Amino acid sequence: MKIYFAGSIRGGRVDAELYRRMISYMQSQGHNVLTEHVGSGKLCLSEQGRDRDAAIYNQDTAWLRESDVVIAECTCPSLGVGYELAYAERFDVPVHIFYNPSKCALSAMLTGDSYFHIHPYNTEEEIFTALDKIL
Amino acid sequence: MKIYFAGSIRGGRVDAELYRRMISYMQSQGHNVLTEHVGSGKLCLSEQGRDRDAAIYNQDTAWLRESDVVIAECTCPSLGVGYELAYAERFDVPVHIFYNPSKCALSAMLTGDSYFHIHPYNTEEEIFTALDKIL
Repeated sequence: MKIYFAGSIRGGRVDAELYRRMISYMQSQGHNVLTEHVGSGKLCLSEQGRDRDAAIYNQDTAWLRESDVVIAECTCPSLGVGYELAYAERFDVPVHIFYNPSKCALSAMLTGDSYFHIHPYNTEEEIFTALDKIL
Repeated sequence: MKIYFAGSIRGGRVDAELYRRMISYMQSQGHNVLTEHVGSGKLCLSEQGRDRDAAIYNQDTAWLRESDVVIAECTCPSLGVGYELAYAERFDVPVHIFYNPSKCALSAMLTGDSYFHIHPYNTEEEIFTALDKIL
């Protein structure tokens, strides 16, 4: 499957290693993660100016439209991820949201939207078990 | 004008006092801020379960669709605000985004999206000057 993985970039990288492990797991199962860079430790986190950020926006929204499913890790709040989830909904791409409820409360704009499949987890193993069922 | 003010709730309340001052300013100019509660110090910040969060979601999205303009303060990352901005774009509601670039880098999903009017500011006075021009 073509997977759009969504995780915080400029909103904060506290969970970057978890993103990397989720992406690696999905790749190990034979899936194509279009946004592999979200798990990278070498991302540039500063603004690039509106023109160069527009190139990022155009690439990411094109990937969203062509993906089979969105897998989002939402424990760390992120404006970009919130935008991506609404964008995926607009284009009828299924969305699965993971988060650790011991670390955050999820926005009512996500928990209150019946379009989204929401997966609270306590241990990382629960994420992989859920991914096996989804993908 | 009917204004949808967007600011972080469950994503973090570090800027709640600023939200309150922005809302009060717009009200003092005769505008109707539909989401006045975003500036309140008495908000419940925990999840309410999907059914009760759905009532919040339904109210907020109804307000988004009926608003004349969205004014968002985006310095504090928030999944809900990111969702709201994309939702407003989908329904052709003009969106003005304020943020303090000395405190954060804004997501490329916002800076790269030419639909959004983006207002970086260094002092709070700059916000009110910009609001005078917008409203």
